Amino acid sequence: MKREIEICFSPALYSYYHKKESVVVVVDILRATSAICTAFMNGARHIIPVGTSAEARALKAEGFLVAAERDGLVLDFADFGNSPYNFTPARVSKHDIVYSTTNGTRAIHLAAQAHAVAIGSYLNLSALVEWLIAQNRDVVVLCAGWKNKFSLEDALFAGALSKELIDKGGFQSICDSVSVALDLWTLAAPNPYEYVVKAAQKKRLAKNGLDDVIEFCHIIDQTNIVPVLEKDKLVGKVCHSVPFKMAKNEFLT
Amino acid sequence: MKREIEICFSPALYSYYHKKESVVVVVDILRATSAICTAFMNGARHIIPVGTSAEARALKAEGFLVAAERDGLVLDFADFGNSPYNFTPARVSKHDIVYSTTNGTRAIHLAAQAHAVAIGSYLNLSALVEWLIAQNRDVVVLCAGWKNKFSLEDALFAGALSKELIDKGGFQSICDSVSVALDLWTLAAPNPYEYVVKAAQKKRLAKNGLDDVIEFCHIIDQTNIVPVLEKDKLVGKVCHSVPFKMAKNEFLT
Repeated sequence: MKREIEICFSPALYSYYHKKESVVVVVDILRATSAICTAFMNGARHIIPVGTSAEARALKAEGFLVAAERDGLVLDFADFGNSPYNFTPARVSKHDIVYSTTNGTRAIHLAAQAHAVAIGSYLNLSALVEWLIAQNRDVVVLCAGWKNKFSLEDALFAGALSKELIDKGGFQSICDSVSVALDLWTLAAPNPYEYVVKAAQKKRLAKNGLDDVIEFCHIIDQTNIVPVLEKDKLVGKVCHSVPFKMAKNEFLT
Repeated sequence: MKREIEICFSPALYSYYHKKESVVVVVDILRATSAICTAFMNGARHIIPVGTSAEARALKAEGFLVAAERDGLVLDFADFGNSPYNFTPARVSKHDIVYSTTNGTRAIHLAAQAHAVAIGSYLNLSALVEWLIAQNRDVVVLCAGWKNKFSLEDALFAGALSKELIDKGGFQSICDSVSVALDLWTLAAPNPYEYVVKAAQKKRLAKNGLDDVIEFCHIIDQTNIVPVLEKDKLVGKVCHSVPFKMAKNEFLT
């Protein structure tokens, strides 16, 4: 039986795409889901996504390591913010991390209504594809966007993922979002980083000097770990069939 | 001063794009806004968009001509449905028409919160561009979509309109939706009809034998009339600088 893929371009549209039996892939390329994948790559044990800064603050008081930002800026009580570069092995290895961001964590909580929730980024693309094919369920890609607006970089990744699921997993789609995202990916695939630099999020990050991570967030297959929601925590599922390419590179030293 | 253009891909996202001082262009290419433009082209005096079928039924009882459909099917009490081919001169000339559709009329009512509301389609593209430039305000393109989901054909038209406003009106944008819609238009401009046949709405219309209008709905500049909301009625603004190309053609006989 062919499985369906759909793409939801904003958390505010999720109710129209929700299917109880689906797997939802949450995507916030700049930067939450790229950062979460980096954290697991660097040895984090669990990530606990929390919606409000009050919850994050309370868990900080209980002794948790806390990564939290709003509008790209680190919250004053947090240990660090939302850049993948913050999640170094020295900081995160064997730790449980409380995590709260502008767009990404809200999307994760919305998606928790579905059968399963996974975290997607270029960094774990092949592992994610293998894991999704193994689930043998319909897939909804939930783009975190920017304050409920459409985001280019998330739509583009959704196109990359759709292409892989169609080509390798025999998925199909009658969803216009998928049709458009596939066209974007065809335009951008030769160099996704070059393509997204025109995105509005680039300008937002650049304003705060935070655009140094954009190229790193568009490197395919740095880890074979798929973060998956179990109750209120993200845990890392290792996909052994995907070669574990993570290595010291120019971005993570 | 440069004016901004943004595109909202779903009525459910409108609150995130709403700007009180903007002009909103409502777009529902298949088929509501194409049908409304056709009605004015063929001599309709006013169009009264109503949200519920109960309102449409009540106005039918008052003697109005009523065009009303849900999910592509004509409501039983209505005079006709939502196909542009229904709005012939013999039926609509000098008439006020009550109009209610699945997606289009809801979008018009949402947009009524803004400074002004215009109706956009390929059929009145050049007139619409001239009218928008003359307003000298920021523009939000509101795509009616399909039950709040993203629609390819509306996004594509929004790209066509954005390109004209940027090229001829000096508009600018930092909106990711505009960036994506412009790329779609670049892909599709040589033949928009061929491009949209892959859209899900085509399949929906084909199921009910209603896909005969798709090619007509993608013909550029058949009328120089811009339907504009005044209180609760759409009225036709004639744009005299655009040549009035409307003529008997193979589609409207």
